[in-house]
Amino acid sequence: METTKFAKFTAEFLGTLVLVLMGCGSAVIAGADGTTGVGLLGISFAFGLSVVAMAYAIGHISGCHINPAISIGMVVAGRMKAAEAAYYIVAQILGAIAGAGLLYLIVSNQAAFEMKEWALGSNGWGKGYLGEYNATAAFIAEAVFTFIFLLVIFGSTSTKNINGGFAGLAIGLSLVLIHIVGIKITGVSVNPARSIGPAILAGGEALKQVWMFIAGPIVGAILSAAVWRSVLEKS
Amino acid sequence: METTKFAKFTAEFLGTLVLVLMGCGSAVIAGADGTTGVGLLGISFAFGLSVVAMAYAIGHISGCHINPAISIGMVVAGRMKAAEAAYYIVAQILGAIAGAGLLYLIVSNQAAFEMKEWALGSNGWGKGYLGEYNATAAFIAEAVFTFIFLLVIFGSTSTKNINGGFAGLAIGLSLVLIHIVGIKITGVSVNPARSIGPAILAGGEALKQVWMFIAGPIVGAILSAAVWRSVLEKS
Amino acid sequence: METTKFAKFTAEFLGTLVLVLMGCGSAVIAGADGTTGVGLLGISFAFGLSVVAMAYAIGHISGCHINPAISIGMVVAGRMKAAEAAYYIVAQILGAIAGAGLLYLIVSNQAAFEMKEWALGSNGWGKGYLGEYNATAAFIAEAVFTFIFLLVIFGSTSTKNINGGFAGLAIGLSLVLIHIVGIKITGVSVNPARSIGPAILAGGEALKQVWMFIAGPIVGAILSAAVWRSVLEKS
Amino acid sequence: METTKFAKFTAEFLGTLVLVLMGCGSAVIAGADGTTGVGLLGISFAFGLSVVAMAYAIGHISGCHINPAISIGMVVAGRMKAAEAAYYIVAQILGAIAGAGLLYLIVSNQAAFEMKEWALGSNGWGKGYLGEYNATAAFIAEAVFTFIFLLVIFGSTSTKNINGGFAGLAIGLSLVLIHIVGIKITGVSVNPARSIGPAILAGGEALKQVWMFIAGPIVGAILSAAVWRSVLEKS
Repeated sequence: METTKFAKFTAEFLGTLVLVLMGCGSAVIAGADGTTGVGLLGISFAFGLSVVAMAYAIGHISGCHINPAISIGMVVAGRMKAAEAAYYIVAQILGAIAGAGLLYLIVSNQAAFEMKEWALGSNGWGKGYLGEYNATAAFIAEAVFTFIFLLVIFGSTSTKNINGGFAGLAIGLSLVLIHIVGIKITGVSVNPARSIGPAILAGGEALKQVWMFIAGPIVGAILSAAVWRSVLEKS
Repeated sequence: METTKFAKFTAEFLGTLVLVLMGCGSAVIAGADGTTGVGLLGISFAFGLSVVAMAYAIGHISGCHINPAISIGMVVAGRMKAAEAAYYIVAQILGAIAGAGLLYLIVSNQAAFEMKEWALGSNGWGKGYLGEYNATAAFIAEAVFTFIFLLVIFGSTSTKNINGGFAGLAIGLSLVLIHIVGIKITGVSVNPARSIGPAILAGGEALKQVWMFIAGPIVGAILSAAVWRSVLEKS
Repeated sequence: METTKFAKFTAEFLGTLVLVLMGCGSAVIAGADGTTGVGLLGISFAFGLSVVAMAYAIGHISGCHINPAISIGMVVAGRMKAAEAAYYIVAQILGAIAGAGLLYLIVSNQAAFEMKEWALGSNGWGKGYLGEYNATAAFIAEAVFTFIFLLVIFGSTSTKNINGGFAGLAIGLSLVLIHIVGIKITGVSVNPARSIGPAILAGGEALKQVWMFIAGPIVGAILSAAVWRSVLEKS
Repeated sequence: METTKFAKFTAEFLGTLVLVLMGCGSAVIAGADGTTGVGLLGISFAFGLSVVAMAYAIGHISGCHINPAISIGMVVAGRMKAAEAAYYIVAQILGAIAGAGLLYLIVSNQAAFEMKEWALGSNGWGKGYLGEYNATAAFIAEAVFTFIFLLVIFGSTSTKNINGGFAGLAIGLSLVLIHIVGIKITGVSVNPARSIGPAILAGGEALKQVWMFIAGPIVGAILSAAVWRSVLEKS
């Protein structure tokens, strides 16, 4: 691999590692209870601020996708070649697994540690998972949230948008928003890599349900790219 | 409708859909309790960050009003033609209804779902509504908050303001602020479309009280435009 | 008064009104309890985001001081004439009184309303006031916090700072920070106008203690201006 | 010391003082309980917003390192001379001690004051310290979090990054993120000066464990600089 390509690969690997370690870590280490932990709002900020941090750290290197749904959406929107997206996605999935592994390494060193169902911040739905929403709600939520997320990405990084410097902030804060709304439904994925990483280590229900977090985000991303390209870009 | 006009219409439709789905969704799905849910602070961030996200996504397309009070204020301030404001407002109201409908679609798929009075994040006041403020407080609050909100919009997007790139952030964060202060009074509207959408689906008290959230914000917007035009713009 | 001067006066009046109405309003209306209200963190964001909102709304008109300690500091730092500072301070104090009055108007229309000691978000200290810190702690805290606040203002608005567009955000977020740390000590003033407004309407202990919130912030502002001018500006 | 050098020294001294006083102060004064205090999320914002505030206040003077790990990382990355880093570090450690001293001065004036183990916001780990993680977890967490923190610093301040104005915001918000995730493990240092200040005044366990918060962050910083220089910078 040539130098630039390796830098991009490393950037996407590290960026996705950070997203999974820090986003999922906020839930696992700091806790969803708002009195003794950081609460759902804190977890929401952790996911979104991971994107803000990485956008300004590696955005000028790889564009900071750190999410296969974004890379696929970029291909559909005609902003990226499929071959480049493919090795981006490999880097993202490897980074997500590494992030989940690093998180496991840290939490397994806690006195009170115990591995549970849907561990390591895995996404899920149905009986026993947070708000107990069904698969229909989970699919709609993941597709719609990814649709919205990609809309922010397409618009804020458009060459017609003179405030492009704010893109990293707007995109990251939109991920905070999506988590505020959606955590109780699926834990919020909108990112296949973010779901695959923890699911591989957690196994069980998390792994059985991981298809939803590949399908939902990809459907949402393709729809968003189509609407962007056919309607909004023509303003 | 020509291409550009259709892009603007779609942008206002989608932007208002996102505001209602995500803002109201944060209250309905994630919950106003700060220990088990995202709390009033989380709901406040959801409304404001919806505006931040949409401002940088569609601001360069339609200006991202996503609020009839803003479009009316822009007309009064001499920055927009009445005819254009009219079809913006149609897009906004349709988007708000779609956002509320999508929210209903998601929450009705929760095991514990039950439709209540003032459902789907509807605005209201009086006995049984949050802090139980009366109609006088509700009207003053809605008019004053919209006055302030429009002041931020006029000032941050003024051609005399060299930091115009920050407008989306300042406007969105001012909506976070307004929600932090006002949720217990009326749930905070400052936006007729945001109130009409949920009220139409929720019916009952929400629909009976919706006139307040048309009247209050419009009065506040007109006053703000008048002060801006006659005093502040002349600096 | 000429047109430009009247615009500046109105801007400082409205800006301080917003700071007091929204900052103090967050405490009085939304509540300091993190489970049922917005919590201390929400109140902190309300004060700071009031400054962010106003900075981008009126910053290009008056500089958005909305705080007598800032206007005095600007005079000491050689960036403003004393005569101009004087009428800024008049506008700020009138705005603060109007903001507290408007807040009283709203909350007095709540079913459960009852006027208490240190009402309307008044600053204070000692027995019965939040963390029950003594006058020494109150004075040190107010002087030190204002020193820090002014440091951020001098630095972020310096002509040597190429990122001047971020000043409004940095200054507002530093006020969030100061409130996060200091609410339990004095409720945080760092702004004589913000204390005078509520104290005049609340009377009692709030009015007896208001001298502290004139003295502390002014001492801090003068020290900060001196350090800025004699050391930091010479970089 | 010449004028410019003295300005830089003072900037680093004051910046680190603010970070320790306000960051640790949020935990000690405002409290980690999310219902009655600002909660872990509020403490996280206090540390991060200290950096945002100082970045825009003194960034144009000294670069706003206010952290020996950053200065060391800058030397390893070839962006700073070792001699300059040395006097930066002296200023940072003196500032941290002054910040902890000022915090002690304030809190010792509270009616309910009592000095406890790991007082003044000291970092630590193991039995009796928050989440009771062991030394392995503490070391991994401090090294990994500092690695990530420095990645954001190198990337956002790179001359190849056209959005350099956002660096202060991105770096500060990444420190918010790191605290959201890591407080329960070690209280989060990623900054030897921030740990040394409180430990010197608190003594006991805090002082015995302070070596961890010198070693962990320095290892993380050196690794981050190496990865940046050998891979990411070559994009």
